[in-house]
Amino acid sequence: MSAETGRAAAASSVTPTPSTAAEVPAVDAPPSSQPVGWHHRHLLDVDALTRADLDLVMGTTDAMREVLARPIPKVPALRGTNVTILFYEASTRTRVSFEVAAKNLSCDVVNIAAASSSVSKGESLVDTVRTIEALGADMLVMRHGVSGAPYLAAEVFGGSVLNGGDGWHAHPSQALLDLYTLRSRLPGGSLEGRKVVILGDVLHSRVARSNIWTLTAMGADLWLCAPSTLLRGFEAWARRGAAGRRFTVTSDIDAALAGADVVMALRIQKERMASGLLPSLREYAARYGLTRERLLAAKPDVIVMHPGPMNEGVEIAADVAVDPRSVITAQVSNGVAVRMALLYLLAGTHGRETGA
Amino acid sequence: MSAETGRAAAASSVTPTPSTAAEVPAVDAPPSSQPVGWHHRHLLDVDALTRADLDLVMGTTDAMREVLARPIPKVPALRGTNVTILFYEASTRTRVSFEVAAKNLSCDVVNIAAASSSVSKGESLVDTVRTIEALGADMLVMRHGVSGAPYLAAEVFGGSVLNGGDGWHAHPSQALLDLYTLRSRLPGGSLEGRKVVILGDVLHSRVARSNIWTLTAMGADLWLCAPSTLLRGFEAWARRGAAGRRFTVTSDIDAALAGADVVMALRIQKERMASGLLPSLREYAARYGLTRERLLAAKPDVIVMHPGPMNEGVEIAADVAVDPRSVITAQVSNGVAVRMALLYLLAGTHGRETGA
Amino acid sequence: MSAETGRAAAASSVTPTPSTAAEVPAVDAPPSSQPVGWHHRHLLDVDALTRADLDLVMGTTDAMREVLARPIPKVPALRGTNVTILFYEASTRTRVSFEVAAKNLSCDVVNIAAASSSVSKGESLVDTVRTIEALGADMLVMRHGVSGAPYLAAEVFGGSVLNGGDGWHAHPSQALLDLYTLRSRLPGGSLEGRKVVILGDVLHSRVARSNIWTLTAMGADLWLCAPSTLLRGFEAWARRGAAGRRFTVTSDIDAALAGADVVMALRIQKERMASGLLPSLREYAARYGLTRERLLAAKPDVIVMHPGPMNEGVEIAADVAVDPRSVITAQVSNGVAVRMALLYLLAGTHGRETGA
Repeated sequence: MSAETGRAAAASSVTPTPSTAAEVPAVDAPPSSQPVGWHHRHLLDVDALTRADLDLVMGTTDAMREVLARPIPKVPALRGTNVTILFYEASTRTRVSFEVAAKNLSCDVVNIAAASSSVSKGESLVDTVRTIEALGADMLVMRHGVSGAPYLAAEVFGGSVLNGGDGWHAHPSQALLDLYTLRSRLPGGSLEGRKVVILGDVLHSRVARSNIWTLTAMGADLWLCAPSTLLRGFEAWARRGAAGRRFTVTSDIDAALAGADVVMALRIQKERMASGLLPSLREYAARYGLTRERLLAAKPDVIVMHPGPMNEGVEIAADVAVDPRSVITAQVSNGVAVRMALLYLLAGTHGRETGA
Repeated sequence: MSAETGRAAAASSVTPTPSTAAEVPAVDAPPSSQPVGWHHRHLLDVDALTRADLDLVMGTTDAMREVLARPIPKVPALRGTNVTILFYEASTRTRVSFEVAAKNLSCDVVNIAAASSSVSKGESLVDTVRTIEALGADMLVMRHGVSGAPYLAAEVFGGSVLNGGDGWHAHPSQALLDLYTLRSRLPGGSLEGRKVVILGDVLHSRVARSNIWTLTAMGADLWLCAPSTLLRGFEAWARRGAAGRRFTVTSDIDAALAGADVVMALRIQKERMASGLLPSLREYAARYGLTRERLLAAKPDVIVMHPGPMNEGVEIAADVAVDPRSVITAQVSNGVAVRMALLYLLAGTHGRETGA
Repeated sequence: MSAETGRAAAASSVTPTPSTAAEVPAVDAPPSSQPVGWHHRHLLDVDALTRADLDLVMGTTDAMREVLARPIPKVPALRGTNVTILFYEASTRTRVSFEVAAKNLSCDVVNIAAASSSVSKGESLVDTVRTIEALGADMLVMRHGVSGAPYLAAEVFGGSVLNGGDGWHAHPSQALLDLYTLRSRLPGGSLEGRKVVILGDVLHSRVARSNIWTLTAMGADLWLCAPSTLLRGFEAWARRGAAGRRFTVTSDIDAALAGADVVMALRIQKERMASGLLPSLREYAARYGLTRERLLAAKPDVIVMHPGPMNEGVEIAADVAVDPRSVITAQVSNGVAVRMALLYLLAGTHGRETGA
């Protein structure tokens, strides 16, 4: 597999909407008290979002960051809104990020860890979701090991479903916080033509799948880099491509990192070893681990990202993780602001007629 | 065992109290600010409740449903009240229902899942309850695998104990939400003379035991229907009966369903198979599963209930669960209102001299 | 080992600071709105606290007890402050005590039980702490099985770290609530010259280690009593001593209890049996269990303490636990007030330049 495999056509066909098109709501007040130009009841994946939608999320996130900078980082905007967080997989950062975001908007939050609830008694997902709605939930944040589970939930849930990660499929709030972080850090705030490398276990990564969509939509020159066993299917995706999106798939880390503006390392899940998809962790680290030495090939002001949790010394060296060029901590804190924006915008669709 | 086994005398001896007797409190205000005609400090089972008590719970639940219909479904009535939810068994709906109910009344809520707490270190229940009180709990909602555990807790706890389910013994808030749901749905709001069938694993069901009490107290013509291995002891109970209560025990599902006004299916716990009390699930479903075909024997406007979580295709067919005659979702949402009423009424006894 | 082994010199060198030196803040108002004479950003152990610090904690706890006695036991002092409780070990009383304390100060609380979070995916403690800070935590309460873990956390956390127990090392909030309880109960409120016996598994006890520090600092005549296998290393500590601290180590329970003003029994962890450090529980109970009979050797108004959870019938007899001389329940309720004081005082250092 060469560095050029699957290279899609060069020019981006996405016409940037002027950012004035997306008028940012006054986030101290409830969304119901003002016109908000948002029409998606659920957030299941990023692929349904238009450029104007993305701009509105980004602008609303700016407003939420202003809230977070206050001595008391809270607004009463969603008081009385019940947010239920139903996680079928272990999580710290995504679960807590949504919880803090919801509380900052004055929501009431209910946590359900499926493993320790009666969900373990074998109730179907559909019945669980109907029950959660009947218990008063207005918004349901869910993580599930099966790709597509949140779509099923959205079919029966009367409020808003926010996908907190489903199988290998999608992790839309992560892609949006990554986008927000990049726009904040890149000179000019634009991804247009920037070389962005996603490095690591793309195959099992919902983070990668959602990021592929948003990054190429914003005009980035996207590269996926991993051992070929972890890139299966992506070559075809890249060749097929969306019209005008730049998308390269390679196992050649030198080609990938050369002149990169951004490198996002992905978590290697140790259980992949057993499946034969990967040699030893040591070998993986030697060939694909993101080290300071390897970063010399990238632009001097390259931006280093990681969705966490990190295996330091495997997919990323400990010194790279805390390098001044790393924005890993900013990703986490922007995550709270992005999720506040998402909860706010989605809540605005309740009681209005909208599609999913 | 024939359909007539254990049939108790026909006429109900319960004289309905005029509902004006139970004056509903103004639930926006704290119970301490007004006279509330409620005298039970704890809710351990329904058998201590008089007809006037039941009417007061129903009326207060009406008021709570009005609160739930508001844009912000909350009242400040119990601000500063600490509700601790101590569950020794897994649960979603009951635990979350109490949590949402308490938050809607502006309580502070503490969750303790006993399995993952130091309760697992072998501390006695009595010490755990004393500790929870010393930590500031005003109200203790508990679920425990051992019948009677909440009675032990109530002996040492200075506030109110609410039984969220104890062993096979009782599940009083479930019986009260079932009663509320039936009164809302039955023409005239009365159970008097209505044929109510509880179908399924009665033997292991605290839901059945608590419902038997309230339903017969309200004058229903109650039938229990299950394989005879799951009815042990109930025949004697029915024969002994309470004076004037109608109570039939049978394994004949056709006799049970004939002309029924209400059918409540109970969850089959799969672990019962191992104990030899039941043949295969497939056989159980074939003989006692609630299907549309079987429902033809009931009244055309029969009401279908289930306490959840359901094993669809076993004790209840999937299409019956979502049939327009099913009130399963209403049971869940009424559960929040009933628990708000219970927390409110019980909190009103604090600082007043009352019995348990 | 004789009763006199390791007896340190008699006179206390600690000069009591007049309690007026520690001016108690007005706890209804935020600490940022007034001068507060507290300079420790973290609470990692009690050994860094001066006599004036201890007096300020005690005085602030008095103020918090006054808050707890109100009909609504809450103050808005720390509204908008995010307290994250990260526990790597099971706990009820310490975890809930901090949670209730934080909510009484109007903090937002996030619970993370490490076992069920992605912390289990192998993320390093340092990365977890950085993530928690980026998620918005102002204060981090943590319990960890490894001694020293909170010190590592404090090196990277921008807010305040409160040690909720680390390995065998320290449990500072427990020692402070024990101190507060003793000052409330001892005539004159002084520990000066009082014989205080810590009885039981000292070796594995972080409670003992933190209490040794505060009790001797306040001038108590401290005795540790246990089978010699559970006293390893403490003899040397006692001999070495701090100048002027009274500190006796013995296996002779009769010598220890003779004339005692205070006896604090420690929990025997049953897993110690396997390690060979202890004979059977029955033998331990017979030789070192705190019974009414044994208490006859102590002062008539001896104060009985236990940090909980108790193994009744092992290290303490059930009737002793509920004896009028037992302050075990008072320890738990004082714990909430002490932790309110600690959260309040530590929060006051944010935004000011202070050392750890």
